[in-house]
Amino acid sequence: MPAKKDEKENLLGITAKKDADFSEWYQQVLLKSEFVDYSSVSGCIVLRPAAYAVWEKIQSYVDIRLKKMGIKNAYFPLFIPESLLKKEATHLTGFSPEVAWVDYGGNTKLGERLAVRPTSETIMYDSYSKWIRSWRDLPLRLNQWNNVVRWEFKNPVPFIRTREFLWNEGHTAFATKPEAEKEIKDIMNLWVDTCENVLALAGIHGKKTEKEKFAGAEYTHALEFVTPNGRLVQGPDAHHDGQIFAKAFNLKFVDKDEKEKYVYQNTWAITTRMIGVMIMAHSDDKGLVLPPKVAPVQIAIVPILFDATKDKVVAECSKLKKELEKEFSVIIDDREGYTPGRKFNEWELKGVPIRIEFGPKDLEKSQAVLVRRDSGEKKTVKLSDVKKEVEKELEAMQISLLEKSRKMLKDSTVNAKTFDELKKAIDSKKIVRAMWCSDSTCEDEIKDKTGGAKLVAIPVDEKPSGKCVYCGKKAEHEVYVSKSY
Amino acid sequence: MPAKKDEKENLLGITAKKDADFSEWYQQVLLKSEFVDYSSVSGCIVLRPAAYAVWEKIQSYVDIRLKKMGIKNAYFPLFIPESLLKKEATHLTGFSPEVAWVDYGGNTKLGERLAVRPTSETIMYDSYSKWIRSWRDLPLRLNQWNNVVRWEFKNPVPFIRTREFLWNEGHTAFATKPEAEKEIKDIMNLWVDTCENVLALAGIHGKKTEKEKFAGAEYTHALEFVTPNGRLVQGPDAHHDGQIFAKAFNLKFVDKDEKEKYVYQNTWAITTRMIGVMIMAHSDDKGLVLPPKVAPVQIAIVPILFDATKDKVVAECSKLKKELEKEFSVIIDDREGYTPGRKFNEWELKGVPIRIEFGPKDLEKSQAVLVRRDSGEKKTVKLSDVKKEVEKELEAMQISLLEKSRKMLKDSTVNAKTFDELKKAIDSKKIVRAMWCSDSTCEDEIKDKTGGAKLVAIPVDEKPSGKCVYCGKKAEHEVYVSKSY
Repeated sequence: MPAKKDEKENLLGITAKKDADFSEWYQQVLLKSEFVDYSSVSGCIVLRPAAYAVWEKIQSYVDIRLKKMGIKNAYFPLFIPESLLKKEATHLTGFSPEVAWVDYGGNTKLGERLAVRPTSETIMYDSYSKWIRSWRDLPLRLNQWNNVVRWEFKNPVPFIRTREFLWNEGHTAFATKPEAEKEIKDIMNLWVDTCENVLALAGIHGKKTEKEKFAGAEYTHALEFVTPNGRLVQGPDAHHDGQIFAKAFNLKFVDKDEKEKYVYQNTWAITTRMIGVMIMAHSDDKGLVLPPKVAPVQIAIVPILFDATKDKVVAECSKLKKELEKEFSVIIDDREGYTPGRKFNEWELKGVPIRIEFGPKDLEKSQAVLVRRDSGEKKTVKLSDVKKEVEKELEAMQISLLEKSRKMLKDSTVNAKTFDELKKAIDSKKIVRAMWCSDSTCEDEIKDKTGGAKLVAIPVDEKPSGKCVYCGKKAEHEVYVSKSY
Repeated sequence: MPAKKDEKENLLGITAKKDADFSEWYQQVLLKSEFVDYSSVSGCIVLRPAAYAVWEKIQSYVDIRLKKMGIKNAYFPLFIPESLLKKEATHLTGFSPEVAWVDYGGNTKLGERLAVRPTSETIMYDSYSKWIRSWRDLPLRLNQWNNVVRWEFKNPVPFIRTREFLWNEGHTAFATKPEAEKEIKDIMNLWVDTCENVLALAGIHGKKTEKEKFAGAEYTHALEFVTPNGRLVQGPDAHHDGQIFAKAFNLKFVDKDEKEKYVYQNTWAITTRMIGVMIMAHSDDKGLVLPPKVAPVQIAIVPILFDATKDKVVAECSKLKKELEKEFSVIIDDREGYTPGRKFNEWELKGVPIRIEFGPKDLEKSQAVLVRRDSGEKKTVKLSDVKKEVEKELEAMQISLLEKSRKMLKDSTVNAKTFDELKKAIDSKKIVRAMWCSDSTCEDEIKDKTGGAKLVAIPVDEKPSGKCVYCGKKAEHEVYVSKSY
């Protein structure tokens, strides 16, 4: 074993504290755990294998469920001709400030410049208008998993705000409004399910205000998540577009009654942003904490190596690995030249849910030590019980993280009756739940006078009563108010 | 049941013959089967659900096997700064004529224009140069599934040559050349396996000539496939880059012996082009023929509906579907208003491997009629045997298509001893196998004097002997000569 200095030793360990300097901590967690890296393209990140593996787990969970709902995957071009992007006016206004434009193919200037898709309504509905003729062609429910580009000029934050991100985009067309609106409910249920049961994240299911809804939508539903630094960040969404795009793209069909009608449409998406929200919520000063359901490695076995017992210890660990990997994803860290402590730190940094320590004493006593990443709890268990215990602990950790997330949401939220209360809460980095008259003037003034807090969501479980927190007129809605990413 | 004219009736049925007008036939097969569509972006196609489902099957087959080989997925930015693309000179020369350039983000002109990735060596190796420090960091074997853009100016052909396509790109770095070269073999074996056993396609495993190798590679292996109109088209490949990129991107590591060394690299890919090759090979004048292993729908059950027996027939078909869909992907076509013949045509057009016809007579006799898409063979089987028979027929069809592909390759190939023989064979749309001195002047002249035939591949099973087909000097290689896509 060479006494060679470990080149990586000095990279390990996060020096910033989550509570003290959240954004420095977030960057260090992501970079030092080798989860993502910055790239030479400003505002674009590299998803290293661990991050991409998390995305694959989210994708596969969602994809299976979308297919069961009868939605099919397809693939539409990355590029959108400028003329097509201009077809729906609100949509264009919403997206054109952040479009990346291609104007040269090789050395040839293009006749018409092409947008790199910021979202695919326009290119997809151009095709839909050719495909939809009769009621028999409906519903048309397509989804694509792809990359999109929005040329943000705000400060980029990995996962939360990057110029390119990965997502799915569902674009559906129905003969009737009730069918379309039923889908919005189904999709929102899927988003809640995915966030709670896979990412262990509790969110607010809300409707957007007119001001904040999607450019081209009749209304927008979304999940909003609180971050440890007291902001709300928007998660997956579902937009009911009514017949807005249908009219712009002439999406008409001949119904059973022989009449020509416009279709009703939805669009919905979940993006890689959720990975960032998840990491912000669960991770700690030691590094990543990944919920077992998305962790690319669920168990790291670390044999404690001494010359005399090394072979036997490693052999026993390999046996254990073989047994565990029937159900879990497991690695064994038998690298030489690293101390066990260094290995423990590395797997903690990388967010592996369970570490198993196994040394000569454990070999003697036919036992192993299980350490849970989230709580740090240690537990000595009989070798024959390891599999059962691991299963139990992984389930418990998944649930515990979700409970922690629920608690964070609750603890971060303050009810405000007056604008003064609202402002104080915002200043102390809280999320505010308040009453609102539904007038956009109040919405604007609240934003102005709080240094940027928005009416982020009208909760679907709202019980409006009393007076608007700003103007004192009769409240028509409850709202969540917060600064947002 | 309304007597309403079926709007789609007149779209069904391919009017061009594969033998008589291959390229018109190919377009009609793809469009009329609703497999792909053109888009409003010139040279880019839409992969409709059936086509994308085929791609998903290819992806999942390959992805599982790559992961077993220890290769991990990641995601790198879509954009590559121009300065980065310029770092490896040969690579730049190879790709820059076909790069799509982004120069505006919203209304802001970018400081440096960005290439939409035509391939990701340069952006990935920029990261690799930060990540690789020690022998402990090797091998580094990453893969990404993504979209790439090559601004082709030749006539676009769906799947075969489009300006955007989907693929995987593997980019690996090893401490030693033998390890890297072992991977080239493993990957080429995976490509042969995938093409033969999933797509039912037999190809030529060859090495590229110096002229035809990848821009930046030391050598290139690829599979080449013959098309029914007598051309070779390149399929999946694997490039050994030696230390060419390593030197351009300074990919150095400290080895166990404490010395700094450059890594050895490979890159390899399979693309959506293979879907086009597969369709060209197997499909016929009735429409698509999809190998069972990639067919999104493997079995279409068509109940023959008469008013008196309709309910019973449909009930029996539903029972059958339930039984079959435990193992296969099945649909039941009980749409009203279409004749059985119209339905048979539609499922043939869409390439469903097995059709099951079931009417009142079959109900009486507890039987069903199985029809195989490739051979048109009909078979009446006992209801209780349907599952067993379907399984047998799907396997037989998969094998039969591969055998047909082998035969097509063999029948299309002609050995030529003289240039005269070579030219005649090329003129009559054959693939030529011939001897070559390995001089690029002969390569150029053969191309010139045949109106564009290239030395497409040096077969890995070559047995060079005798004289060069062009200059008569001693042969150093066997080559396949053909016009190509």
